[in-house]
This record gives sequence, structure tokens and C-alpha cells, in this order.
Amino acid sequence: MRFFSDNAAPVHPNVLATMAAANTLDTAYDGDAFSKRLDARLSETFETEVTALWVPSGTAANCLALAALCPPHGSIVCHRDAHIQNDECGAPEFYTHGAKLLLADGEGAKLTPDAITDILSLQRYDVHQQRPHAISITNATEYGRVYLPDEVAAIGALAKDRGLALHMDGARFANAVVGTGASPADLTWRGGVDALSMGFVKNGGMNAEALVFFGGDHAETTRYRRKRAGHLLSKGRYLAAQILAMLDDDVWLANARAANAGAALLADAAGDRLIHPVEANEMFLRVTADEAVSLRAKGFDFYDWGPGEARLVVSWDQQEADIRPLAAAIRAL
Amino acid sequence: MRFFSDNAAPVHPNVLATMAAANTLDTAYDGDAFSKRLDARLSETFETEVTALWVPSGTAANCLALAALCPPHGSIVCHRDAHIQNDECGAPEFYTHGAKLLLADGEGAKLTPDAITDILSLQRYDVHQQRPHAISITNATEYGRVYLPDEVAAIGALAKDRGLALHMDGARFANAVVGTGASPADLTWRGGVDALSMGFVKNGGMNAEALVFFGGDHAETTRYRRKRAGHLLSKGRYLAAQILAMLDDDVWLANARAANAGAALLADAAGDRLIHPVEANEMFLRVTADEAVSLRAKGFDFYDWGPGEARLVVSWDQQEADIRPLAAAIRAL
Amino acid sequence: MRFFSDNAAPVHPNVLATMAAANTLDTAYDGDAFSKRLDARLSETFETEVTALWVPSGTAANCLALAALCPPHGSIVCHRDAHIQNDECGAPEFYTHGAKLLLADGEGAKLTPDAITDILSLQRYDVHQQRPHAISITNATEYGRVYLPDEVAAIGALAKDRGLALHMDGARFANAVVGTGASPADLTWRGGVDALSMGFVKNGGMNAEALVFFGGDHAETTRYRRKRAGHLLSKGRYLAAQILAMLDDDVWLANARAANAGAALLADAAGDRLIHPVEANEMFLRVTADEAVSLRAKGFDFYDWGPGEARLVVSWDQQEADIRPLAAAIRAL
Amino acid sequence: MRFFSDNAAPVHPNVLATMAAANTLDTAYDGDAFSKRLDARLSETFETEVTALWVPSGTAANCLALAALCPPHGSIVCHRDAHIQNDECGAPEFYTHGAKLLLADGEGAKLTPDAITDILSLQRYDVHQQRPHAISITNATEYGRVYLPDEVAAIGALAKDRGLALHMDGARFANAVVGTGASPADLTWRGGVDALSMGFVKNGGMNAEALVFFGGDHAETTRYRRKRAGHLLSKGRYLAAQILAMLDDDVWLANARAANAGAALLADAAGDRLIHPVEANEMFLRVTADEAVSLRAKGFDFYDWGPGEARLVVSWDQQEADIRPLAAAIRAL
Repeated sequence: MRFFSDNAAPVHPNVLATMAAANTLDTAYDGDAFSKRLDARLSETFETEVTALWVPSGTAANCLALAALCPPHGSIVCHRDAHIQNDECGAPEFYTHGAKLLLADGEGAKLTPDAITDILSLQRYDVHQQRPHAISITNATEYGRVYLPDEVAAIGALAKDRGLALHMDGARFANAVVGTGASPADLTWRGGVDALSMGFVKNGGMNAEALVFFGGDHAETTRYRRKRAGHLLSKGRYLAAQILAMLDDDVWLANARAANAGAALLADAAGDRLIHPVEANEMFLRVTADEAVSLRAKGFDFYDWGPGEARLVVSWDQQEADIRPLAAAIRAL
Repeated sequence: MRFFSDNAAPVHPNVLATMAAANTLDTAYDGDAFSKRLDARLSETFETEVTALWVPSGTAANCLALAALCPPHGSIVCHRDAHIQNDECGAPEFYTHGAKLLLADGEGAKLTPDAITDILSLQRYDVHQQRPHAISITNATEYGRVYLPDEVAAIGALAKDRGLALHMDGARFANAVVGTGASPADLTWRGGVDALSMGFVKNGGMNAEALVFFGGDHAETTRYRRKRAGHLLSKGRYLAAQILAMLDDDVWLANARAANAGAALLADAAGDRLIHPVEANEMFLRVTADEAVSLRAKGFDFYDWGPGEARLVVSWDQQEADIRPLAAAIRAL
Repeated sequence: MRFFSDNAAPVHPNVLATMAAANTLDTAYDGDAFSKRLDARLSETFETEVTALWVPSGTAANCLALAALCPPHGSIVCHRDAHIQNDECGAPEFYTHGAKLLLADGEGAKLTPDAITDILSLQRYDVHQQRPHAISITNATEYGRVYLPDEVAAIGALAKDRGLALHMDGARFANAVVGTGASPADLTWRGGVDALSMGFVKNGGMNAEALVFFGGDHAETTRYRRKRAGHLLSKGRYLAAQILAMLDDDVWLANARAANAGAALLADAAGDRLIHPVEANEMFLRVTADEAVSLRAKGFDFYDWGPGEARLVVSWDQQEADIRPLAAAIRAL
Repeated sequence: MRFFSDNAAPVHPNVLATMAAANTLDTAYDGDAFSKRLDARLSETFETEVTALWVPSGTAANCLALAALCPPHGSIVCHRDAHIQNDECGAPEFYTHGAKLLLADGEGAKLTPDAITDILSLQRYDVHQQRPHAISITNATEYGRVYLPDEVAAIGALAKDRGLALHMDGARFANAVVGTGASPADLTWRGGVDALSMGFVKNGGMNAEALVFFGGDHAETTRYRRKRAGHLLSKGRYLAAQILAMLDDDVWLANARAANAGAALLADAAGDRLIHPVEANEMFLRVTADEAVSLRAKGFDFYDWGPGEARLVVSWDQQEADIRPLAAAIRAL
């Protein structure tokens, strides 16, 4: 049983079904009936008027957002362990044409106003340094932690105070919504988020993420950047269909709930071995090399995450019955 | 009945079926069973060892290819009407970090060695100008013309002689293969093509194109550029599956044959109205504004293409019975 | 006697003297006494409040201006023979991060509202093409022609009407001022120019040009771009000193007057051989290969400019006595 | 008396004199007699055949070097306090088109093989991260420390072993040569340095630095990048003249010797207040806010460098008599 990545999971049946339903003649690019419904549908979800662009990857969503919020001569505060810093092969630098990521510290890959303020206070604000223009946080974080609405709002307030834009990498946004019990609105724009990379792929989608802008005229220029980056797919309806399928009947929340619940099961079994509290669908575990070998020998697959650490991710489609054996195995270590 | 773009057509059933077959747990990104089969499968198609990368759009394929073949301080000869110049919002400049497109003339958007030589002879080859590094041709062209193997080879020989790389934008490569009756190998590497953007989307695919490298170590660095551009999708198997579905049972050729045949029917009806010979699945027609209105009144949808000109594109799924009414309407103008 | 480029000429003695006067301890970068005087001094020259940044080359001035006026996903209308297109090795694309130059035609490298309108009318204004954001004209042009205030104003009005910014490459701005007899203000901001690359190097300076912004907040972000491009020299006072030396006592106008007068002498001798009217300090001459050889045999050095054409440039320091022999030689051809 | 920056110092008389000597008609750009002598002259200095390009700033030298040594999808190891990271407004990212700086630690802004190895060991070497391509060290460092030949060679050996290129930011290279007593060759190519930004401006030059390549074909493509960045000045002879003037009669070494000696005098006075050993011409001093005020009240000008720290820099032209008063004042604190 694989627990190494929610990227490896299959696609939810509703997603496939809606893609099949989209399989008729329609307008090219994003002029089709499905794409046209996105803004309204997501505006409902977020209880405010939003503009959304589909893109086929989270990297594209993140970096189009950053390019909208920060000029080439600007800088962006993010966590040292952020996906945009460590896992996108410099896509932020590519899309922003060379903006600099300023790396802040914080437990569980979470930023705090203090940590951000510390980094900002090291900047000189003269022309010899790129001036901070934005903050990027990840919810749920790269270590499976969540930001609560108050925590987002505290960062949002700091951002506003400093004239910075706020981006949220929501590759696992659904897991954060479920994990916090907060509304999508409270986790984003009400807390000052300007742009959200709203992930669906890790949560049962195939290859469609939504880049959601809460106000501003960022969407207009981002349409050009999306095209220019090769992300305006010519048959966009198959991407829009995925997103709509995930939103309809709250599939996105049900899937995240399942994944989070599975991770909670494992967390319960892991006890003191937990490196971070489990608040979404990821678990980071202290294991010796021998223990890792023994888990793998039992058929459980996961990533090593530094020496003595393992990352286990539960996907939307993994049933309690699939997870109990791993929980038992962890308990038995 | 829509004839405005093959981008609007639905997806071939085999493509959907193979995507559904790929809908099981597998490795993330491009480590899955489907992605791993691509090189071997395309090597068969091209009768030589190739390296192929899937990407979700033709723009991505084209511009990753150009970035591999031309440095920022270089230039690329292409036709004035090339898609890379007119329809990609500067994606070549984005991906190459500012290489310059040198625009050559030629009937039907076709380049000839003479036209290329003319452009090259205008360059000064000093540091005040970007030095030519590559040539890009489109087969079938933006005006539905095809390059025959000899024509490709003549350009390939010129490229080799001048130390230039050769890229082929094959958004409608299948239509060119069918239209010329030539082998994929003869249309590409045997004629000196270094990199091919092999299109599937316009021909029955959903959102997968293959960037095919014929030798060189371009593929290795391009894997970084692909990631960096957000085009290494996290569930790549659904893209690889599409390409394999198109290649299996020669669906790609059957689809192109159908589209080309439909266009030939229309061409026969159009007679003197043809602006370019119809050699693939596109037809450019002389029509007055009134005639365009009358065709549209009969339910035929197409793009105006400059004053007095219309572009009509036949898609893989359009049956003879769908096309005959348009042929009749054109004849009746 | 060399007539191949005003870039080859020596530096005016006042420039050297002022640089020597600047040779005392002062603040680094652009905080020094000389740099601080630039805005006020140039505001006098232009009869309005301007913000000016020194840079060591015309390419830097041009491309920082273009980057201020056009985003990466935009395009810039310029003449097919513009320096920014042909002689800067893609610096515009480097600085703008890939904006596209749209090439217009026009006699003597001059743009007209009609020529610009023609190019604009070919753009589709959808996301598949880079949207026009700016126009760039050169005064005096690459063929030694000048724009009169009315001509600038007509282009400026068009620019304003279309929401485009207007840049003037003034590598030979002094020659244009002298050649037209117009005021610097009338040739620039009163006609709608937003940014001027004000050249001094070809006109007796050493390595300092002024990038002049007429309003807007372009200067602020351009200071970051200048630093980022390595053009914020650490001892900027030697650049500011050059510009001040050229402006003081109207050395810049005297120098341009001398050069233009020399070119007029040659033009008078050239008669029907002139390819373009001589309105500044450059002359383009019809000469056979044999005639070119004979002129060179007499010690006159110049550039061939396409078959049967020669370019001769008069520099600020060339005296009538230096020029008469060439005039005679041309007459004697 | 100012001790805040060697960038503020005047220019050595020989530099001005040689610039004046260059003030005759010559070829434009870098085809002149002075520029042509650079390679040979610097090859003598370095006891091996080098290729050198003049540029008007250290930022340009550094970033052209980095762009030559690292592709956009690569990364560069440098010290956390490196000038390229903190003081060039993202110029490395601009010139390399988005390569990432990997920040290593080390006393006195010095890198060690261990520190570099630590950083390298954190990289995953998969396509999700930019792959290390180069190391950049600064000699003398940003804290006035020097690398000895053995230290350079140890880093050079590591670089070679890992397939990385090695760049040296030598904004104060002369101070390092004098400070170590080592030969220019031993401090650079013999230790594995591929490219050196050889600074002259802080050491008595005006606005000319040399980018020196020790082998490889980097110089050829860098000529294009230099032009494209606006750093191929049209009257390059005035830059070449500066460099030649500094090299002739070993002015560069004499100037550095003077500056280093001045700093040594101050170091002697500072005793326990020294934050770093003084090995070149910079001194970092522990001072309370009150002490800083008192020093400034006596007419000594310097930068605060974090709380309780001051940076004092001695310039080439500061005489012992100028420095003794400051030494006394420090002693008297």
C-alpha cells in the first residue's frame, strides 16, 4: 500500500464522468461552457466575487500568482521549507523573472507574523536589495500543519500594514478547510489573502488547479501570462470540468475528510513518534532505518524525509480498511 | 456545424478509455508505467531512438524545444505567419529568455532554403545582433500546406551547413504525415529535424503533446525546464496514456486521414475560391462578407481570416455526411 | 579621416575637465553632489519637472525605458530599422523579459501615425498575442532624419488615444534639436513623449547618457532595474559630471551644430547621391564599389551600408577644414 | 574623514591621465588599441592566457560571470553574506534568468569545503530542484577576510570533483593579493577559479572592472551577453585605459597596499573590538551607539553594520596621517 504521495492516487469517478460529459464540441481554449461557469461557482464557494483561472499544475498556479503579485525586482517572504522554494525547480524565479524568495523559519513550515517581521527587518529597503512585495504561505503546510483563520488574518494584517500582497499555496487547501473546520472565505480573503492556488489534483482531480484572485486586476494580466507560459490549454473544458466535478456535491471536502481521517488514524497509532501534529493528511514520523525497512517489508511505501524521518501521506481514496494495517504496523514498531 | 478550429473537437473514445485505464495508483510525475513506455513507443514510430517528453500544450512543446535549441542571445528563423510568432503571446521569448524570431516570407506559410538564406544574409553576425541558432518550420503549416520530405531535407541541409538547429512545429503533424504519404522519419530526423512538437490535441487528444528529441542531450536539460515551467504535471500518466492511445492502432493516422479527407471534399467544392492548395485539414477560402453571412446563416461556423478570407478547419470526428452540406453550400455561393 | 561613427570621436575637453573636478571624495553610487543636480538641471532644459537617471550606455537607457513602459507580455511598435531592433543584441527583450517589437515601415526610419496604425490594426488584442503597450521612435533617426514637433505630437496623440506609452531614442537628440530648431520640450513631452534616452556619448561625452522621465512613477522602479542591471555605477559622479558639462554653456548644442553643419557640407557636395535628406549629422550615399574604394584610397573611412550604399557620420570635433576634402572628393566622383 | 566606502574615493591620477591619453579618435566599442591590449596585459599578470572583458561595474562583472557558468535551471553556492546575494538587487537572478543562490554559512563571509559540502548534501539532484552548477566566493570577503591559495584550491578541488564551476568576486582582489602575499595566479586559476571579477573601481579606478576568464569558451558568448545588457560601451577605450593604468607600474598593488596598511593601523588600535581579523582594507568594530556618536562627532564617517557594529573602510588614497587620528580616537573609546 502506497503512502508516499497523494499525487499518485487515482482520480475521483465524478471527475472522470464530468470530463466525459465535456467530451462534445465546444469553443477552444477557455471560452467553453464549463470554463465560463468557474467564476460563479467559486464565487459561491468563497462567498465573494472571485476570478479564477484553471491551470494544469500547482506550480503553474503558484508561480502565475507570484508573478502577478511581485515584480522582477521584488522579493517574496516564504518559509524555508516551502514548496515554491524547494520543489519547483526555480519556477517562481522563472515566472517572476527573477524575484527573490526570502526564507523565514517557523515550526511545521508555518510562518508567523514574528518570523515574517524578522525577515523584513533584515531588509534594507534601498535599491541595492529587492524590495519585499509579497508573502506566500502554504495551507495546509508542507508538514501537514494548518493555519487557522486567525493565523491567516494576523499575517494578512501584517501584509496589509507593510504594503505586501498575500499568496496562499493551497495544494492541499481542501485538507486545510476540513482540518480547521473553517470556511474557505475565512481561510482566505477574509484574512487578507489576495490569491489562492486552489489544489484539486492531490485530492482526486487529474490535472486541473484553480488560481483564484480575490479582487484586484491581477486576473486580466495573468491571462496573458498563462497563455505565454503555455498553460492556456486548447481544450480547457476538460480542466474546468474537473474543478466543477470536485466542487459539486462537495466532493472536494468529502475527499479531504477521508484523507484527513486516515491520517488521524495513523497519528493516533504513531503517538510520540510524530514529528509534527497531524492536522491534515500528511504524517511525519520518527523511525529508525531498521524500522523503515520493516514497514516497507510489510508492503507500506513512503518517502524518507531526512535521517530518521519518514513522510506518509493518505490519499482521498484510501479506506479505513487500507489504513488500519499500517496503523497496526506503526504501533507494533 | 463548427469548422472554426480542430481545438474545439471532442476527444477520441480510445483516448478517454486509456485515460480511464490509467486511473489506478501509480508513481507521481513521469515515473509511471505509461510515461515510461513513451520513448520506446515513439522510437518505433520514428524508426530511430528518440526521447520524448509529454506536455499539456503545443505552446509548451514548441517553446521548450526552442529554449533547448537557442540561447537568449540567439535568434530563430521562422515564417512571418508562424504560430510561434503570432499565436503564443510571446511564449518563445518567455521560454528562451528573449531570443528573437527572424521573420521570413514564403507562400502558404512555408519556408524555403532561399527565403531562409535571404534572412540569414541580412544578419551581421557581430555582437550587436542576436546570432541565428535555429530554424523553426510548421508541418502542416498555418495555411494547411505540407512540407514534403525533400523540402524538409533541403532546409535541414541548409541548417546543418549554417550550424543551425531545426525545429518542427507539428501541431498538425499527423495531417502532414497523411497529407504527404511520407513516413514520420522521412518528415523529421532523416531530413535533419532535431526536435519535433508532435501534436495530438487537435487530432483527437485531450491535453497531451509529445516533445520529441532526435538525438543530442536536449532532453536532459529540458526536463528541468519543463518542471520549471510548471509542465511536469503530477499525474503524468494521464498524459502519457493519451499519446499511447493515439499511437495504438494508428488512431492518430486514421483521425488525420478523416480530417484531411473532409478538407479535400471542401476543397473540391471551393475550386477557384481556394487561397492555398488544401494539403491537410485546413481550407482558406475567398468569400465576400455577404457570402460569409450566408454560410453562417446556414449554420456553418468558421473564422474570418483577414478581409475577404475565411478559414475552415475539419476535425477528426467530422463525418462525410457532416461535411457534404458545407461543400454544397460553398458550391452554391 | 574617419567618418564611420560618432562613437569613435574623442571626448569634449569640458567633459574631461568636469570629470577631473569631480575627482574628490564624495558619496558612492548616485548620492553625490553632481548626481543630485541632474534633475534640476534637466528640468530647466526641458522646461518642466523631469526625473533623470544616468546610465553608461544608450542601450541601457533605451531598454530601461522600454522595461518601464511595457510588461513582458506586451509589445512595442518601432521602425524596422530601429537601433533597438537591429543593434542591441536583443537588449529590449532582455530588459523587458521578452516583450515583442512590432516592426513598422517608413521612409528614412521615420514612423508615421499611419504606419503605426497599420501595425496596430494587425494585432488581435486577445491573449494569444502580446498587446501593444508602447511606441518607440528615434530622433534623429537611424538614417539621419528628424521628427519635427508636429510629427512627434501626431504620434503622441495616437499613442495617447490607444493607451500606449511613447519612448524616444535620442542617441542623437542634440542633433535633432539643432536640426529642427525646436526646443527640447517641443520635441518631447509637449508632443507626448513619456521617456527619452538622451544621448551624450556620440556628441562629445564619454560614457554617460541620461534616461529622462517626463512624469509618471517610472523613475522609482527604474532605479531598481538600473541597479539590477549593473548600471548603478559605484562612482556615479563621473557620469553625472559628464552630463552637466555637456549641458553647461550649451556644449551639447554647439557640438551638435558643428556635426550637423559638417554633414550639411557633405550633403551639398553629394547632390543626387543622397539616399535620405541630411537633417542631422549622418549622410547615406549612393556609391559604387569602385567609388567606395577610391574614397577610401584617399583616406576617408566609412561604413558600407548595404550594396551601393555608404554611411558617413560627422562627429562634433570635425572641423570644416577636415570635411572639405571629403566634400571635394565626393563631388569629384 | 570618510571611512564608509572605498567606492567614494577619488580616482588615481594615472587613471585620469591614461583616460586623457585615450582621448583621440579610435574605433568604437571594443575594437580600439587600448581594449586590444587587455588580454595580453592580464595574461602577464596571471601568468597564463586569459580572456578579459571590461565592464563598468562589479555587478556586471559578477553577473555576466554567473550567467556564463550557470544556466537558468541551475543553482550557485555562495555565502549568506555575499554581495551577489545582498547588494545587487537580484542582478544574479536577472542575468542568469532565474538561477538560485544557495546560501552557505562560514565565519567572516568565507566559505569552506565543508560548508559547501553541507549545502550540496541538502540538494536532491532531481528535476524538482535547480541543480548546482557553480560556486561563488569573494576575495577579499565582504568582511575583509582573505582566502589563501590553499583555501581557494581546496574549494576549487571540491568544485572540480562535483562538476561545478568556480567564480571569484574580486571587487577587492588587489587587497586580497596584497593581504595574502600570494600571486594573482595562485589565488585564481591555479586554485581552480574559472572566472574572476577583477575589481579596480574601489581601488583607484573610475568605472572599469575586468571580467577575466581562465579558459573555456565563456568569453565568446559573454560578449553577446555584455552587449545585450548594455555594457558594451560605445567608447570602450576609456575603460580599457583605466585598467591598463592600474596595472602599469603595479598601481593596483600599491593602492591596495596603502589601503591595507591603513586598515592594519586601525586594527592595531581596535584590539578586542575587532569582530573579524583585518586582512584587507575593511574593519568591523564593536561599538556602542554612544561610541559611534562620539566617533562621528570627531568627524569620522562610517556605516553602522547591525546593532553594535560599525564598518570602516580604508581607501587607496588615505594617508597614514589621515588615519592616525581615527586610530587614536578608537583607542580612546
